[in-house]
Amino acid sequence: MEKERGILFVLSGPSGVGKGTVCKALREQKLDIQYSVSATTRKPREGERHGVEYFFKTKEEFLDMIENKQLLEWAEYVGNYYGTPIEYVNSTLDEGKDVILEIEVQGALQVKNIFPEGVFIFLTPPSLDELRSRIVGRGTETEDLINNRMSVAKEEIELMRHYDYSVVNDEIDAACNRIKAIITTEHCRVDRVRPKYEKILGDDK
Amino acid sequence: MEKERGILFVLSGPSGVGKGTVCKALREQKLDIQYSVSATTRKPREGERHGVEYFFKTKEEFLDMIENKQLLEWAEYVGNYYGTPIEYVNSTLDEGKDVILEIEVQGALQVKNIFPEGVFIFLTPPSLDELRSRIVGRGTETEDLINNRMSVAKEEIELMRHYDYSVVNDEIDAACNRIKAIITTEHCRVDRVRPKYEKILGDDK
Repeated sequence: MEKERGILFVLSGPSGVGKGTVCKALREQKLDIQYSVSATTRKPREGERHGVEYFFKTKEEFLDMIENKQLLEWAEYVGNYYGTPIEYVNSTLDEGKDVILEIEVQGALQVKNIFPEGVFIFLTPPSLDELRSRIVGRGTETEDLINNRMSVAKEEIELMRHYDYSVVNDEIDAACNRIKAIITTEHCRVDRVRPKYEKILGDDK
Repeated sequence: MEKERGILFVLSGPSGVGKGTVCKALREQKLDIQYSVSATTRKPREGERHGVEYFFKTKEEFLDMIENKQLLEWAEYVGNYYGTPIEYVNSTLDEGKDVILEIEVQGALQVKNIFPEGVFIFLTPPSLDELRSRIVGRGTETEDLINNRMSVAKEEIELMRHYDYSVVNDEIDAACNRIKAIITTEHCRVDRVRPKYEKILGDDK
């Protein structure tokens, strides 16, 4: 039987919601899913390997990738470029493996334009109060900065409507279980499995 | 916060695939989901209680329910009527509880006409050979009867396209886990949870 193509899962959500923590917890569960590897112009840190943590690129190479539409999304952050190479995602999906991509809300919307068949998961805070206390809890930011981050987060939550699923990050384990349920469920969608059954029935005729 | 309405899950699949066995295994897991109670004109057996195993009806009452469109679906089977009362399903959903309904493929399509917002799950055999051996394994049916049941099953599998999900019943536990994943996932769908977040954001303005 022909191998089914993998599914791209895009995990995003407002700044402060805990995307990184949830993604780390998912990784520790050793699911049968590939984590996307980003391209970056930042210099490798001690122990980081090309093609594992990142694809390390010069600025010229990165700008060429943008120019040649080889990135699903990209952004500049503190003077360095970061982006998701389409080629890596596509070749992994072609091998029949699912890919998970953890990115910011704006980046996820870029991905959706190029890759509408992806599954878009929005990680949401249980409440705005809880989001505020997570942002406050991160460090010693001023009241103004906190209010600013809260209003950005609220704008990001309004972008939830472009996503397929909303997963509440009330507890990390619960959020991970919901994401795993979504991965299982997406593989059961009739649109995805019908061709296989039509082949079975066709072969039997 | 306003209580979210429950979701109707309709579990169906070709005759012989093991719907009853999977549903029984699900029940034993004591999920937070209500099993639909059918109406029937069949006489109660020892220990069966009205409103628990079935709603017991006279033939006149049942025909009235059909006439008044009070059934999501119905069928006649060996001289008795069986059907799903809309009222029971709707009032359970209104309480915020999910409902699961296990029925034949044709009945499920009737439900879909009246209740398109339901989630339709098609239980599929891992292969046609496996389905045949399950049908054979049931008893002492003749080769002709088995072939007949197989061709009915194949026609039913073609109706999978009207469903949302296809769950392979390779092993009961695995099938149950997929169904549980679908239940969890459907509660994460953005269309369902967005009104809640819009309210949170609205209240905060």
